[in-house]
Amino acid sequence: MKKDVLKILKRYRVTDGKKFRLKDYDPADTAGLDFKKKEAQELLQTGVKRLAELQDKLYAQNHWSILVVFQAMDAAGKDGTIKHVMSGVNPQGVSVASFKAPSAHEINHDYLWRVNQQLPERGRIGIFNRSYYEEVLVTRVHPEILKSQPLPQELVGKNVYDERLEDIAAYERYLSRQGTVVLKFFLNVSQKEQKRRFLERIEDPSKNWKFSGSDMKERDHWKEYMAAYNSAISATASKHAPWYVVPADNKWFTRLIVVAAMIEAMEKLDLQYPTVSDETKAGLETAHTKLLND
Amino acid sequence: MKKDVLKILKRYRVTDGKKFRLKDYDPADTAGLDFKKKEAQELLQTGVKRLAELQDKLYAQNHWSILVVFQAMDAAGKDGTIKHVMSGVNPQGVSVASFKAPSAHEINHDYLWRVNQQLPERGRIGIFNRSYYEEVLVTRVHPEILKSQPLPQELVGKNVYDERLEDIAAYERYLSRQGTVVLKFFLNVSQKEQKRRFLERIEDPSKNWKFSGSDMKERDHWKEYMAAYNSAISATASKHAPWYVVPADNKWFTRLIVVAAMIEAMEKLDLQYPTVSDETKAGLETAHTKLLND
Repeated sequence: MKKDVLKILKRYRVTDGKKFRLKDYDPADTAGLDFKKKEAQELLQTGVKRLAELQDKLYAQNHWSILVVFQAMDAAGKDGTIKHVMSGVNPQGVSVASFKAPSAHEINHDYLWRVNQQLPERGRIGIFNRSYYEEVLVTRVHPEILKSQPLPQELVGKNVYDERLEDIAAYERYLSRQGTVVLKFFLNVSQKEQKRRFLERIEDPSKNWKFSGSDMKERDHWKEYMAAYNSAISATASKHAPWYVVPADNKWFTRLIVVAAMIEAMEKLDLQYPTVSDETKAGLETAHTKLLND
Repeated sequence: MKKDVLKILKRYRVTDGKKFRLKDYDPADTAGLDFKKKEAQELLQTGVKRLAELQDKLYAQNHWSILVVFQAMDAAGKDGTIKHVMSGVNPQGVSVASFKAPSAHEINHDYLWRVNQQLPERGRIGIFNRSYYEEVLVTRVHPEILKSQPLPQELVGKNVYDERLEDIAAYERYLSRQGTVVLKFFLNVSQKEQKRRFLERIEDPSKNWKFSGSDMKERDHWKEYMAAYNSAISATASKHAPWYVVPADNKWFTRLIVVAAMIEAMEKLDLQYPTVSDETKAGLETAHTKLLND
């Protein structure tokens, strides 16, 4: 990938959470770039094309899998990013899982139980639209959620969120050791831009379906959510499972960063189509000759 | 539970692996007990009855789950122990999972993927007849297994087993934090007693089905297996996920230790039938009156 793109990516990548402060990241940042709509779209298409090539090799090689986690406040652009970055990639090698409030059956298990079932197979890209991170985000902002769960309450101590972050970090380390490349994107939208997008959803009838009253409720907890995200990113950013704090006030920029980060991670894997053995090659030649003379 | 039983249990429990040496444990030990067959059976029945009571409460309360892992060399008595200890407990609250060589589909995931699907729900006891520990046992004795897997081979370094043990320890800590009580039993049979049982399986036609040629092959690797068990127990014994090194040359003793350890762990949970609210009680009374006047 081009050097300048790598440099831009580095700006938003967090691999060591020690000194991480979310407020150092500007949601409106575009790294000095100022593309016109058409330019941005063309660039995105170039990226998607490259991503599709890499995914084809990933699938053929069948060793690695890619887990892409999206977390964000409402209207930050998760759905749009998934749509625009992943359309054009062969759906046979991609799965998208959305994690809503757990069902009665799911809640009867540990919180990673339902997550495991959605993990991508080798050779696949798995997209998580929200994820197990909700277990240290929405449950942290609304501690009553944990209280209402069948979880033995003596296990819900004052360190419960730190314990969960420790567990999640260990889980991602394990996954990376088993061949899953973990990439985590926090789409960093500003409260002001969220307001603009909410108003649009309310005022434009074709967008009404995207808005729900509960979105407003969560908006009231903005500061607590930012604190929860800050803790989560701090505790779980690592080389093997980096976070990208992606500026999300400009949709075109969000999408470019996401596609570029995915390409960079996949290019590191040295993906190749499997080579066939001499024996298989000889078999191919025999078939070739036979078909030509058919 | 009686004090002397607790004292005996302690002899075999490992909660800190630092100084653990498997060779300190005698497979023929019976803690000085010398029961006649009938006495041992009666004692076991008393234990199974108590276990069934506890399991009934576990199920009704629906907070905790119990994960019981059995690991051992062939003919150490895993199947017999599961049969004799768990028969008598309501099967609605018990599941038994056997982990054989992974399928082509399973191998396309991380090694805990198939394990997660078999984890007991809240209120249930889950028995693992062999387990994820095989990933640091049979694969350690036969490293060619990992080489034949689709796992990216650059991830299979010289520390791969230590990494796996670290991951397994973290996994069990996570499970315990989510309300799963993890109990691990290594049925410690001697090579001499295995020989006796193998001969029995060969000489008694009704037991022939239990014997396979591959059992003999693994017997040749006895020392390497003991070394692998030693490392696994050392690295993963903890208060929240203890190992029991159960003498297994005498079946009656193995079974008593297993049932006693399960009872002890469940008695610690203070299991209780859920109490109903005053409102529900009032409803019960109304129904009671109505039924009597029906």
